[in-house]
Amino acid sequence: MGRFQPYHLGHQSVLKKIAQEVDEIVVGIGSAQDSHTLENPFTAGERLTMIWCALKELDVTCYVIPIEDIRRNSVWVSHVISMTPKFEVVYSNNPLVVQLVTEAGIEVRNLPMYRRDAYSGTRIRAMMLAGQDWEMLVPKSVARVIKEIDGPKRLRNISKDDNE
Amino acid sequence: MGRFQPYHLGHQSVLKKIAQEVDEIVVGIGSAQDSHTLENPFTAGERLTMIWCALKELDVTCYVIPIEDIRRNSVWVSHVISMTPKFEVVYSNNPLVVQLVTEAGIEVRNLPMYRRDAYSGTRIRAMMLAGQDWEMLVPKSVARVIKEIDGPKRLRNISKDDNE
Amino acid sequence: MGRFQPYHLGHQSVLKKIAQEVDEIVVGIGSAQDSHTLENPFTAGERLTMIWCALKELDVTCYVIPIEDIRRNSVWVSHVISMTPKFEVVYSNNPLVVQLVTEAGIEVRNLPMYRRDAYSGTRIRAMMLAGQDWEMLVPKSVARVIKEIDGPKRLRNISKDDNE
Amino acid sequence: MGRFQPYHLGHQSVLKKIAQEVDEIVVGIGSAQDSHTLENPFTAGERLTMIWCALKELDVTCYVIPIEDIRRNSVWVSHVISMTPKFEVVYSNNPLVVQLVTEAGIEVRNLPMYRRDAYSGTRIRAMMLAGQDWEMLVPKSVARVIKEIDGPKRLRNISKDDNE
Amino acid sequence: MGRFQPYHLGHQSVLKKIAQEVDEIVVGIGSAQDSHTLENPFTAGERLTMIWCALKELDVTCYVIPIEDIRRNSVWVSHVISMTPKFEVVYSNNPLVVQLVTEAGIEVRNLPMYRRDAYSGTRIRAMMLAGQDWEMLVPKSVARVIKEIDGPKRLRNISKDDNE
Amino acid sequence: MGRFQPYHLGHQSVLKKIAQEVDEIVVGIGSAQDSHTLENPFTAGERLTMIWCALKELDVTCYVIPIEDIRRNSVWVSHVISMTPKFEVVYSNNPLVVQLVTEAGIEVRNLPMYRRDAYSGTRIRAMMLAGQDWEMLVPKSVARVIKEIDGPKRLRNISKDDNE
Repeated sequence: MGRFQPYHLGHQSVLKKIAQEVDEIVVGIGSAQDSHTLENPFTAGERLTMIWCALKELDVTCYVIPIEDIRRNSVWVSHVISMTPKFEVVYSNNPLVVQLVTEAGIEVRNLPMYRRDAYSGTRIRAMMLAGQDWEMLVPKSVARVIKEIDGPKRLRNISKDDNE
Repeated sequence: MGRFQPYHLGHQSVLKKIAQEVDEIVVGIGSAQDSHTLENPFTAGERLTMIWCALKELDVTCYVIPIEDIRRNSVWVSHVISMTPKFEVVYSNNPLVVQLVTEAGIEVRNLPMYRRDAYSGTRIRAMMLAGQDWEMLVPKSVARVIKEIDGPKRLRNISKDDNE
Repeated sequence: MGRFQPYHLGHQSVLKKIAQEVDEIVVGIGSAQDSHTLENPFTAGERLTMIWCALKELDVTCYVIPIEDIRRNSVWVSHVISMTPKFEVVYSNNPLVVQLVTEAGIEVRNLPMYRRDAYSGTRIRAMMLAGQDWEMLVPKSVARVIKEIDGPKRLRNISKDDNE
Repeated sequence: MGRFQPYHLGHQSVLKKIAQEVDEIVVGIGSAQDSHTLENPFTAGERLTMIWCALKELDVTCYVIPIEDIRRNSVWVSHVISMTPKFEVVYSNNPLVVQLVTEAGIEVRNLPMYRRDAYSGTRIRAMMLAGQDWEMLVPKSVARVIKEIDGPKRLRNISKDDNE
Repeated sequence: MGRFQPYHLGHQSVLKKIAQEVDEIVVGIGSAQDSHTLENPFTAGERLTMIWCALKELDVTCYVIPIEDIRRNSVWVSHVISMTPKFEVVYSNNPLVVQLVTEAGIEVRNLPMYRRDAYSGTRIRAMMLAGQDWEMLVPKSVARVIKEIDGPKRLRNISKDDNE
Repeated sequence: MGRFQPYHLGHQSVLKKIAQEVDEIVVGIGSAQDSHTLENPFTAGERLTMIWCALKELDVTCYVIPIEDIRRNSVWVSHVISMTPKFEVVYSNNPLVVQLVTEAGIEVRNLPMYRRDAYSGTRIRAMMLAGQDWEMLVPKSVARVIKEIDGPKRLRNISKDDNE
């Protein structure tokens, strides 16, 4: 479960490691309804395309599923369960996810480690805005998807000042 | 795009035929938020599992994506576009879908033919309720999924009379 | 307050008569979020265009305002008040509207009479579906708007049988 | 859990019997957001007042809680849990409630018997509409609440024909 | 009307004083749909249990009612009225509540005084997070409820840093 | 498209200039559902009244239409189209609006210049709060509307400190 704004090499490394522990992975794309904001520039469909392309490079069975926000923490776990194939373990470092899933009596494991200072959506979006070179932080196929929709330009456009 | 309550051999036959015309197929699971009703007994997650299992028997690249209802016809096409990878043609016989997609300037093709009198979700749900033999109307792997969650029993339970 | 699917000569006659009693009229377009259904074929924008064109033929100050459904009768009057200029009297024959507005302590008057058997949205939509001559039931300018968007064809398209 | 449109002697008899089995009762008022319709004429606040008055006649600890519809069966149990004090058993004859609560792993018991042909919200609303004598079907204190807000008149008003 | 995150001795003191002025009190639990956040850690059901327990210590008739946010200030008063028994005076210091209720023509009174620097939900939640002794700031029975669900641990869990 | 909190001489000057380029103007009132906040003190109906009054001073055909937020950028353009008469060009300086409308293939033009440092809703609301003289920044007829509903007092009331 993540927002994948955008999908990057940190995510890729995590999925590779999880793939060694389990047979099938359900990847939930959170805040699926959001797009065209500085925090969430890409639509769920665009993010899904990125992930799908990147997963082709791996050898693992993945269900990739957009999950719209339901804005009520108390029903969020039920909401996710209703949208996904049956799962037995949840991998997450998000404290709220860990708490909600634990209260629901489902096993949670910490995400495998990766270099969070290097690979982070926040950092990549900042580099796109600044016109810096973000491409080596995402899988090659993902870079292609982002360039096709000209993601950095979209980000720069929506960050403009009203009064320019 | 369909509700797939449940996924049956008619759907399977349609996907096989479309697979001969295109490279990739996006399968949208409509009314994803609905479940546990006589019209929509299965959750989006359960339907997704059915479709995924059945597609393993075919040789075709499919994106299977739950689409929640947005309850405004005028924005429905934009909603679907935001949740899915880019597509060029829509296959549908649903008159409302055909009209909305056509007004949005996107190409629509009729679904390939199959025996609608034999294969239909409505008929299969009625057979489940009546305790009749519905299994030969769905792919074998789908029948397994439905039996694992005891779908027919769920249907019969929610159809009981309040006053019994 | 009405759905105006479509605006017809009955509506026109009512507004003419009300115009003799008051200085300004607020016309609320109800169920503004609905369109492309057999009951509500036209968008709020299309209905607003119809009404605006028809009102040019009259000599009366009208505010025409789309009102989205709020799906809670108990807050509906407050919702309408928040979306409209201040009003003092409500004209309506709809029993629910009469009851809600009366409970809120606002004066309600019955709509002036017109030939309801002849002029009704339901009847006009049925005539459009049947390919009959509906044009003399609406103001000339409204007929032009409807033909420009080919309203009858939209209605016929969305009424088709799935299995045709 | 019920809609209590209105609260009647059948409900009262059921609560009396349940009170012999448990220490505390949570009474959920379903479809709390609905009012002023033929099916749901009374607001949640009005229904809560009826129940509260009727419970004074009994000797039992009751939490009476309005529950708004969440329109997704798959999260409904979580929604109810989040709005209510902790409970251990659910009493219901509603087949959907029984199914959802059972799937969530919570114990369900059938409601104690009462004369359903005599005491039913549907029947009482029909009698109110017809101007018949409904008062002996509800607790005396509830009759007082209904008469104070002139419930039968509200029902008759919203049931009027548009064209009268 | 308050969020009661959690219910504390300040609330208790206010209710005691109001009880001397009126016969019955309606206690609305605001933002009922929220839980598991730093601002709103407890569900409406948990907060209702706290209040109910604390009120047993007092001698006053209270209706305790969860009120979900409706996210439109212009209909908020109608929303509250629909969910509650009839009331005549509103006690509140919240400037928005005072303004909305006043515009609706309902009498508003200021809350009786209590030591706000000492008793405040914000302060108690901060003490829970810091592992300080918060218990003497809430009624004894409320402390028991909070410890049973291990409220401070929930708060600390959801406040953890993602990257720990 | 703007929020018009409140409508001021900058807006008036912009509409005058646009009126020289086009025949008809559609004015969308954004965030129509909001009111009684420091950012959005006025209801859609109040803002509509302001605009209508101010436009009487001009000689231009304007459709003034409240647009409720739909909280999904990906469907926002479709939403606006469904609520408005057909338009061909969008005038906006808002970067998000420019991006969304451009992606939808509709022509966008920059708003004509006016003195933004002098005329801005933010500045006028701050002056109202501070009790300064804001009236010369809005059209005379708008000042009358605002004074009739005592807008500055509403702003000051909702900005009070809880603990005063």
